[in-house]
Amino acid sequence: MKTIILKGNICHTPECGRLETYPNSYLVCENGICKGVFHDLPKKYEGFPICDYGENLIIPGMVDLHIHAPQFAFRGTGMDQELLEWLKMRTYPEEMKYADPAYARRAYCLFAEQMKKSATTRAAIFGTIHKDATLILMDLMEETGLVSFVGKTNMDREAPPELMEKSAGSAAVDTLEFLNAVQKRNYRNTKPILTPRFIPCCSDELLAELSKIQKEFDLPVQSHLSENPDEVSLVKKLVPEAAFYGEGYDRYGLFGRPASTIMAHCVYSSDAEINRMLENGVWIAHCANSNMNLSSGIAPIRKYIEFGMRVGLGSDVAGGQTESIFRAITDTIQVSKLYWRYLDDKAKPLSFPESFYLATKGGGSFWGKVGSFEEGYAFDAIVIDDSLIPCPHDIGVADRLERAVYLGMDITGIRAKFVNGKPIDMEDLKRNQ
Amino acid sequence: MKTIILKGNICHTPECGRLETYPNSYLVCENGICKGVFHDLPKKYEGFPICDYGENLIIPGMVDLHIHAPQFAFRGTGMDQELLEWLKMRTYPEEMKYADPAYARRAYCLFAEQMKKSATTRAAIFGTIHKDATLILMDLMEETGLVSFVGKTNMDREAPPELMEKSAGSAAVDTLEFLNAVQKRNYRNTKPILTPRFIPCCSDELLAELSKIQKEFDLPVQSHLSENPDEVSLVKKLVPEAAFYGEGYDRYGLFGRPASTIMAHCVYSSDAEINRMLENGVWIAHCANSNMNLSSGIAPIRKYIEFGMRVGLGSDVAGGQTESIFRAITDTIQVSKLYWRYLDDKAKPLSFPESFYLATKGGGSFWGKVGSFEEGYAFDAIVIDDSLIPCPHDIGVADRLERAVYLGMDITGIRAKFVNGKPIDMEDLKRNQ
Repeated sequence: MKTIILKGNICHTPECGRLETYPNSYLVCENGICKGVFHDLPKKYEGFPICDYGENLIIPGMVDLHIHAPQFAFRGTGMDQELLEWLKMRTYPEEMKYADPAYARRAYCLFAEQMKKSATTRAAIFGTIHKDATLILMDLMEETGLVSFVGKTNMDREAPPELMEKSAGSAAVDTLEFLNAVQKRNYRNTKPILTPRFIPCCSDELLAELSKIQKEFDLPVQSHLSENPDEVSLVKKLVPEAAFYGEGYDRYGLFGRPASTIMAHCVYSSDAEINRMLENGVWIAHCANSNMNLSSGIAPIRKYIEFGMRVGLGSDVAGGQTESIFRAITDTIQVSKLYWRYLDDKAKPLSFPESFYLATKGGGSFWGKVGSFEEGYAFDAIVIDDSLIPCPHDIGVADRLERAVYLGMDITGIRAKFVNGKPIDMEDLKRNQ
Repeated sequence: MKTIILKGNICHTPECGRLETYPNSYLVCENGICKGVFHDLPKKYEGFPICDYGENLIIPGMVDLHIHAPQFAFRGTGMDQELLEWLKMRTYPEEMKYADPAYARRAYCLFAEQMKKSATTRAAIFGTIHKDATLILMDLMEETGLVSFVGKTNMDREAPPELMEKSAGSAAVDTLEFLNAVQKRNYRNTKPILTPRFIPCCSDELLAELSKIQKEFDLPVQSHLSENPDEVSLVKKLVPEAAFYGEGYDRYGLFGRPASTIMAHCVYSSDAEINRMLENGVWIAHCANSNMNLSSGIAPIRKYIEFGMRVGLGSDVAGGQTESIFRAITDTIQVSKLYWRYLDDKAKPLSFPESFYLATKGGGSFWGKVGSFEEGYAFDAIVIDDSLIPCPHDIGVADRLERAVYLGMDITGIRAKFVNGKPIDMEDLKRNQ
């Protein structure tokens, strides 16, 4: 039995909106699982070595429910375009390059290294349609020590020929080959996830094939939903018989039931769509930064929380410019304030403890007991050194946490990172800088 | 005559929306003034030493038209509150501390150091009501080498007693003492600016006194305008005879005419107010980040640009969480997209070159010929090393600039900074880190 004890200023949100802070306390892990937070170390743990992080903040690892690995290469550029134009002009030309495994390795190395450096401990990741490239991505993610779901994307229409699978049948063959190759690799932390890109790019035949594969392998699913008005109109034209966008997936069991499913965005979900998501237990990946950059809008997250829906945060690189989930936390709060001001004055802005919860336990629940330091939760933690932020007065732990997140201390202040109780070698990263 | 020649990838926006990029070119400065950008160095400059920044980006320094120095101490905290509550709970209690010059020195040292490190070369800065503290702030800003206007704030109502001047008369006496002390100091780069906090905190008597002082010293003015609906209502109650908020200042010549004036926010300016700003040539300090954090709203910047108004960007620390004007550039673009989506589909979102212009030449115009590398402009420049952003493919200079700004490379990537042709000692800052 392996026991790890961290000491520092410990913070987590066991409930949405309730931030608990434990100054100078102990966080205990046994065999990768949290045993709780203690102000005084219980007798049974005396004698174990203690990692004393002094005044540092210790918080749950961040969970990124939606990120595109191949788009990392052009993040922060081409931001003056809207979704469909941006896909055509920026995204698809880049994604084509991943047909070349050498390019894929070069680009995915940079992505994986950044993910390792970041505050993120778990992520749901889109690849491209290319199975070789996506296997390289999975190899590299496995090496980081992070936990992830990685999907080979499926697309068979409304895209450049180089990015379309030849037929639904060949897409199925490719996907099965990909899944078989993954099984042989026996990854510990890296799992496959079915990834129909979005309804505009997926024919009914393709979705029917994926449905069969989903049942055979009992796979989770990730995709996009009701992100942008033009996209929603396009879906209505392509699938006129569906009562709402999400029904396009739901008809094939790719919408929460039977497959555990993450749907990114949900900015323009109709009441019927919301009800179906709620019934089926779909996870919503809220990507506030991307929804601003691509002029999409603001998702009604307050409503989703009040309805008891499953909500986590996504960076959506490269619709979002950065993989930082700290940034996603503050963007979520900021756009919720504009939503309240302009769209619905009953939708109270999200508070910091609420948004922090979404970034940890909210998204973490896709993996089960993840995103909190309660007993029985997976031991994913990051240690933040905020001592470089000068301050002329005393400041409490809750304020320090809020400040560290607002000032983006995940870029310069991560001192240590643990996933399932295993330390990630951050020094290794510093040496390579 | 002092000649400086920088070599690198040079970018600026001589017109709003027109980004010019000069790969591997020369930027020439004589006696603090730009002589232009040259692809091939003119014969007359041959033989002068060249600072070769290789592949680095060289851009005009950032201009911050609105920042509160005393609020820097609590930036990134207390962000779950709206303007008037936040002033009462967070801002005023902090500002009271500046009655103590020792505290002021400690806090303002941290502020000035951060401003020196930042991409900002010029700023319009609020202090507190305390003249001693504000002189300390000016001493410290002068030491940074940056160019700034710094204001002793005036307030005589609607604030805690500790933060109110006893009467309009005593406020005038204090302000005159402050101005006389400033004159004796013979600062090179640091100038005083009249700073009535905002109409809610300034009686007519106080504004009348400031009007006299403005004329006597020919001072510029900075204040707040139409930031938040509750604040606008409060002003209507306090000054029922004014046709619009800004008339409260205009009646005393503190609204662009005769005083050069910066008004921060202008989110809820009426048509009459906008017309008066246009007639009087008021500068608008657009503070997108603060306007989100304090749930204020989104200023109609596209409209202001189309009307030919004077617009620059402000960080508004600590309503804004960071002094980064790179962040202000991207926030400006992002909220303009939401404005277009939800409030006015004729108000085209701001492009990157437009927002970059606001952050440089737009705000810079408050100082005259500032914010561009055209001939005759003040030589304010920063050099950005973006080589730490890994990229698997070739990327052009314009994309690199956009990426550096979106990824916040002003935090880790500033290699050099020049103000009026004088280099700021950045190494000195690194040594102290």
